[in-house]
Amino acid sequence: MLIYDLSKCGTVPKYIYLYMCIKEDILTGKLKPGEKLPSKRALADHHNLGVVTVANCYEQLLSEGYIVSYERKGYFVEELSELQNRSPGSSQLPLAEPAGEEAAPVSAEIGEQPEAEEEDREYSFDFKANRASLDLFPRATWNQLMRKTLYQEDDSLYTTPPYNGLYILRKAIAGYLERERGMYVDPSQIIIGAGTEYLYSRLTQLFGRHSIFGFEDPGYKNLAAITASYGNPCRFIPSDGSGLRVDLLDDSGVDVVHVSPANQFPTGRTMPARRRAELFEWVSRVKKRYIIEDDYDSEFRYKGRYIVPMFADGASEKVIYMNTFSKTMVPSLRISYMVLPKNLVEKYRETVSFYSCTVSSFEQYTLAHFISEGYFERHINRLKNYYRKIRLSLISAVQQSKLADISEIIEHNAGTHFLLEVHTRLTSEEIRTAAEKADINLRMYADYCDFVPQEMNRAIVVNYAGVQEEKIPEMVARLEMMFPECS
Amino acid sequence: MLIYDLSKCGTVPKYIYLYMCIKEDILTGKLKPGEKLPSKRALADHHNLGVVTVANCYEQLLSEGYIVSYERKGYFVEELSELQNRSPGSSQLPLAEPAGEEAAPVSAEIGEQPEAEEEDREYSFDFKANRASLDLFPRATWNQLMRKTLYQEDDSLYTTPPYNGLYILRKAIAGYLERERGMYVDPSQIIIGAGTEYLYSRLTQLFGRHSIFGFEDPGYKNLAAITASYGNPCRFIPSDGSGLRVDLLDDSGVDVVHVSPANQFPTGRTMPARRRAELFEWVSRVKKRYIIEDDYDSEFRYKGRYIVPMFADGASEKVIYMNTFSKTMVPSLRISYMVLPKNLVEKYRETVSFYSCTVSSFEQYTLAHFISEGYFERHINRLKNYYRKIRLSLISAVQQSKLADISEIIEHNAGTHFLLEVHTRLTSEEIRTAAEKADINLRMYADYCDFVPQEMNRAIVVNYAGVQEEKIPEMVARLEMMFPECS
Repeated sequence: MLIYDLSKCGTVPKYIYLYMCIKEDILTGKLKPGEKLPSKRALADHHNLGVVTVANCYEQLLSEGYIVSYERKGYFVEELSELQNRSPGSSQLPLAEPAGEEAAPVSAEIGEQPEAEEEDREYSFDFKANRASLDLFPRATWNQLMRKTLYQEDDSLYTTPPYNGLYILRKAIAGYLERERGMYVDPSQIIIGAGTEYLYSRLTQLFGRHSIFGFEDPGYKNLAAITASYGNPCRFIPSDGSGLRVDLLDDSGVDVVHVSPANQFPTGRTMPARRRAELFEWVSRVKKRYIIEDDYDSEFRYKGRYIVPMFADGASEKVIYMNTFSKTMVPSLRISYMVLPKNLVEKYRETVSFYSCTVSSFEQYTLAHFISEGYFERHINRLKNYYRKIRLSLISAVQQSKLADISEIIEHNAGTHFLLEVHTRLTSEEIRTAAEKADINLRMYADYCDFVPQEMNRAIVVNYAGVQEEKIPEMVARLEMMFPECS
Repeated sequence: MLIYDLSKCGTVPKYIYLYMCIKEDILTGKLKPGEKLPSKRALADHHNLGVVTVANCYEQLLSEGYIVSYERKGYFVEELSELQNRSPGSSQLPLAEPAGEEAAPVSAEIGEQPEAEEEDREYSFDFKANRASLDLFPRATWNQLMRKTLYQEDDSLYTTPPYNGLYILRKAIAGYLERERGMYVDPSQIIIGAGTEYLYSRLTQLFGRHSIFGFEDPGYKNLAAITASYGNPCRFIPSDGSGLRVDLLDDSGVDVVHVSPANQFPTGRTMPARRRAELFEWVSRVKKRYIIEDDYDSEFRYKGRYIVPMFADGASEKVIYMNTFSKTMVPSLRISYMVLPKNLVEKYRETVSFYSCTVSSFEQYTLAHFISEGYFERHINRLKNYYRKIRLSLISAVQQSKLADISEIIEHNAGTHFLLEVHTRLTSEEIRTAAEKADINLRMYADYCDFVPQEMNRAIVVNYAGVQEEKIPEMVARLEMMFPECS
């Protein structure tokens, strides 16, 4: 039986403390791969805890890939070979040819719809938009903080903001990252910019024209397009069931790799601990290697605690952490940020600080107040409850429809989308045409692939960020009608 | 005697109509180079006009370089050879070696101070900042419009703005350009971005890696640094008394040239009509050639009407017009825009529309209301009156000080700075050191030069945008004390 001294947990919630202890034992080898963990009830009884506490702890270890669970058997410390067998088709995935500089630009910012001018059409049903309900944005608070900002005495509103953003906002973000991601960073490590693409452009310049950038396949292709526009070579690295295939990185020649360990897009997977460890080993081996950890969407987890970023997990010297407020606040607010490893702060200043900051001080101040006065975390919770509800309604509507017989929902209790893998005789082109006819705006999984795995050729990306609850029955009915197998 | 039918002027002010008539006659050759114009009084009497009206007309023709005036002789149609002789030292200017990709980044955005983090020092006296007085920004109006924006029904606030900016703002800008610059453009030609540098990056991508960019020397060096960061070759083109030496453009291999015809920085010169015509001829000769017309600061003219942009002057197919609100509104507001020739609109969309817009919709909306409800033009007038006053106070304080004997003020009734050419035995390095000691923040003319003309080696750029009137006597006293010749 695992015995831990929970009296040492201090102010840390018990389930998190327990999670930290078990994780530590796995990492140090005290708990061996394949070893069975005690049942939730047994561990709870032994430590005088509620079963829910242990369940939360195991849930967290599960989502981070430290343990696995088998139905009716229990929980086991994860084994690498097990993991690879678990993911269907992963070992058969051939190595896609690196697409190089010709990567076609695909979408706007991560998870956002492409530009309105590109397709003027307004759809009745939208599985692509990131348009949260109007009522969710805390307008009164925002208005009050904007007013406060405008009338504050500090005259830095009337000067050009520094290249890396206002100190007050960087400090507020540092506080948030400490509270909500376990990251201990100095505000000087943070860079504010108008969108992830903007920050990406600066990173491309920081690493220089000869650095080779690697991207997850499937994943967002527009970041590769940005990098390629600077003349940098890009490689798409295939994934398997555990995410990016680190074993292929060495041969690819990649120097800087972009990953989303907490919530990969579009698969929705969390990178398991073993794969993380491999990635960490890869990045540590060569001085010029770095990881760009895109933590987009990580706020929306509906089970367990947040996934600890690699940055906070011993890799802060080799990881550039990135996130955005476009998704959590409102898509029209163009504020993203990144956290540089301390060893890159000075180089960044020397190399690209001649670019002025792209975010107005008004909005930087307002957001800083919004975060430091606690509104942001409350807002995230409200959004999370809202998305949880929409997600459940949508999933249950699909499950109760005829789609249930011909499709599988692939999702991982996180983000604002799931995959709907449809078994149909329609080709993916026919699915698109049918969606157009049904006045549904959607993207296919294949849109995010360099190499499209056969079995995912007909998977639809169902992004419910812009879905209104009252429209769900009609939406699902229209989806149903798209497929001849449902009639 | 020149005879024009002023009854045809309609709603156009008489002095502008008269200006248009005379300009037309110069351009068509009806008025020959060197030809003497009637005296102001004679022309006024003949047309039943006030002398002031004719004076304003001549002033405008003078500032645009169509005519020249000689003391006690009168006004003459400009001659090219005259113009070149008039500018001291211009013909001796050697061709500077193109600096190529190694151009060091110098400043942040045009006319703005470099980043606060670069130099933490706070100076008591600042000839570098763009910090207009707090009282000048119309806070109450802005606050009211922000509130209106936040509570408007239109839900596009809750979606990602299109890559080129919100239609409502582009339309407001098109209206402003028509009223205040005589430019007739469609909103689809306008691109909104967070700062001139951002737009510059997109243009570099639009024209492609093999386009050679040309920049005025002296001028802003940071735009060259941006272009160079994409791997594009850059050339610095020397200037003479009429601005950029177009005769050197052909040999330079430049495809796209950046100029500020209305108000060159840091010389403050307006490009005379003859040079403009040469530039127009240069750009028209080869299909891939374009002009980037940076109209920064053009709002601040203290005599005469605005300078007609080349875009509005027959070159709209070959000119990309650029301007920013950072200077006219408040430096912390990161909103710039450019107007593309119609023939580049579609290419821009195809090439770089995968970059999301970098300006938040909140501020785009608020600014759109601010412009279309007439607040912007009123604000500009208020600012102009304010700067005019500061400028006069500062110039007269310098003229009444001991600096008058050892320096010359070079300025052209425009912008928010003048040049102070000091005849001193101090080296430029010693001037910098003395300024540091006097707690004065300043830039030298040489900071904006690739090649520094001997006679300008000790010229100081006196930017009065951030100067408070009550500080002027002390500022000038400190300037005086910097130079041994004054004691």
